[in-house]
Amino acid sequence: MTQKADTKFERAPDRGNHDFKLACDILDAGKICHVGFTLDDQPYVVPMAYARMGEQLLIHGSIASRLVKNLASGLRCCATITHFDGLVYARSSFNSSMNYRSVMVFGIARPITDVDEKRRTIQVLVDHLMPGRRADLRKSTKKELNATSVLALPIETYSSKCRTGPPHDSKSDLNTPVWAGVVPLELSVGDPLDAPDVLPGVIRPDYL
Amino acid sequence: MTQKADTKFERAPDRGNHDFKLACDILDAGKICHVGFTLDDQPYVVPMAYARMGEQLLIHGSIASRLVKNLASGLRCCATITHFDGLVYARSSFNSSMNYRSVMVFGIARPITDVDEKRRTIQVLVDHLMPGRRADLRKSTKKELNATSVLALPIETYSSKCRTGPPHDSKSDLNTPVWAGVVPLELSVGDPLDAPDVLPGVIRPDYL
Repeated sequence: MTQKADTKFERAPDRGNHDFKLACDILDAGKICHVGFTLDDQPYVVPMAYARMGEQLLIHGSIASRLVKNLASGLRCCATITHFDGLVYARSSFNSSMNYRSVMVFGIARPITDVDEKRRTIQVLVDHLMPGRRADLRKSTKKELNATSVLALPIETYSSKCRTGPPHDSKSDLNTPVWAGVVPLELSVGDPLDAPDVLPGVIRPDYL
Repeated sequence: MTQKADTKFERAPDRGNHDFKLACDILDAGKICHVGFTLDDQPYVVPMAYARMGEQLLIHGSIASRLVKNLASGLRCCATITHFDGLVYARSSFNSSMNYRSVMVFGIARPITDVDEKRRTIQVLVDHLMPGRRADLRKSTKKELNATSVLALPIETYSSKCRTGPPHDSKSDLNTPVWAGVVPLELSVGDPLDAPDVLPGVIRPDYL
């Protein structure tokens, strides 16, 4: 594992952490990353589903997607995962903040071309994105595998950044009779909606 | 309003929409965007709080942040907002998908240097990020304003993309006795946590 010096955050070094375990915890808690790359001098930032497989970040898309095609061609990229954990209400707008956990992974994503490796990585993606689901699904066909692009971005050069805890107010604001604290935010799961064409008698699986 | 031709998504044009009203709805429903830009051939994607002010996206950060400084120097960027609305369980992994609403805004962010304009844009940011809060907060000091960088990115060149609704399975999979549907996801607000130094007698405001 190597870390590029210039991925260091200068502003608040205490919020930056290069620890691999922390990065994995943040990555494993998410399903969507934002992948950035520049094409003809124009940066693009694209939301993509992902999964971690050991020291690689797997991202996938349609083989027909222009952006995925470009990403697979060896462009340098940055994949960022952010969990927005809370709004931090300080007694001034200046000290108000947000709680979050974030990882930026820098590098070049390798397209997975071997059919067996592609099948394996798609299984890892399905297991991460929809835990428990895979046992219910038929095997991917060759045609489907060919139409899917899976990319592996090494988790070698990365930077984690977090903010947690209560607001940090200026001393001179502490006597203000204004409430301060944190409003937690969380991505929550709602009640499943059946597709209109679910066969009669088929019930919702436990893994939902 | 202009839209750059190459921001068009080739893959699923029915999921792309250049309509300004739709883009505003998606922008107004979020608080965090991912801003991408390239510096010395390395793309960066940074989560930042934002608010929309008419046809501009306001983003802000510390004047001391290296990334904000670089962004303010006139680099082309892309700010992407994504709402992750649900997991779409199809009867094959190939047709499984995600429901989401996303906007990419392309351009160059202008640093706001005029003190009055900066004060006004910070108010817009506070009103969007923490509705109702502003009345409880003292005015920002000159020192605080000077330490804050606010950038305005014109919402001129942008692209919205959404997926909604149930899975679209292949006809040959419709007779499979496997549940299909959508598991909705939503960023939900938890119970506020008081800061340890809240003055006795100060209660939680209604706007939380």
